[in-house]
Amino acid sequence: MDRIPILKMGDCLLVTIQVDMHDQLAVSLQEDLTAQIAKYASRGVLIDISTLEIVDSFIGRMLANIAAMSRVLDAQTVLTGMQPAVAITLVELGMSLSGIKTALNVERGMELLRQYIQEENEYREPDGSEE
Amino acid sequence: MDRIPILKMGDCLLVTIQVDMHDQLAVSLQEDLTAQIAKYASRGVLIDISTLEIVDSFIGRMLANIAAMSRVLDAQTVLTGMQPAVAITLVELGMSLSGIKTALNVERGMELLRQYIQEENEYREPDGSEE
Repeated sequence: MDRIPILKMGDCLLVTIQVDMHDQLAVSLQEDLTAQIAKYASRGVLIDISTLEIVDSFIGRMLANIAAMSRVLDAQTVLTGMQPAVAITLVELGMSLSGIKTALNVERGMELLRQYIQEENEYREPDGSEE
Repeated sequence: MDRIPILKMGDCLLVTIQVDMHDQLAVSLQEDLTAQIAKYASRGVLIDISTLEIVDSFIGRMLANIAAMSRVLDAQTVLTGMQPAVAITLVELGMSLSGIKTALNVERGMELLRQYIQEENEYREPDGSEE
């Protein structure tokens, strides 16, 4: 298996990471994800890491890269399902994942993304018609 | 990694299979899925197999089992993202996956599940108020 599936759900893309990441897989995920954001004009990316028991500096950096790439393509990234032990490790490693929004689970993550997309739309169309 | 994550999205549960299945993983997926259907009173299960390039009789049987288990727990199963080559292989193997609904992608699968849930609700409450 050499590809992580990216599921399109409306405005957003959903990725669940459930295998150990290695260099090639990380690169292909970044390529696939940026291609799909451009293809579907997606506004949000949701990455679920609920099965990851270990997040080392490599995965942390990859997640930060994905968030940065998405941002320049005009999509917001939300990370969901982080296990408590992973949060402890990340902070102890000195990686606070700044720039990445997090949510407890996929439902809350989707809510956060919808809220963000709505706010952005309002900001872009300040002279919307009153209803 | 010895668990496949199950994502709760409203009334439905979403599973993306992206690793090679083996006996133990299949059993733990069935256990986790039935436990979550019961816990959240889920009405639909969506299984995405878009990255699976090979579906042998073992996986085919596992999917049929999951659908049957879900059905007795009052949840409908939809299989999404099947690759054309997989469809060819399955029919050639004599497995037509009867009893499992399929959809081209996750978006259509979700639509199908929502439609099914709505129909079921109408059937159960035949004397609903007119609006």
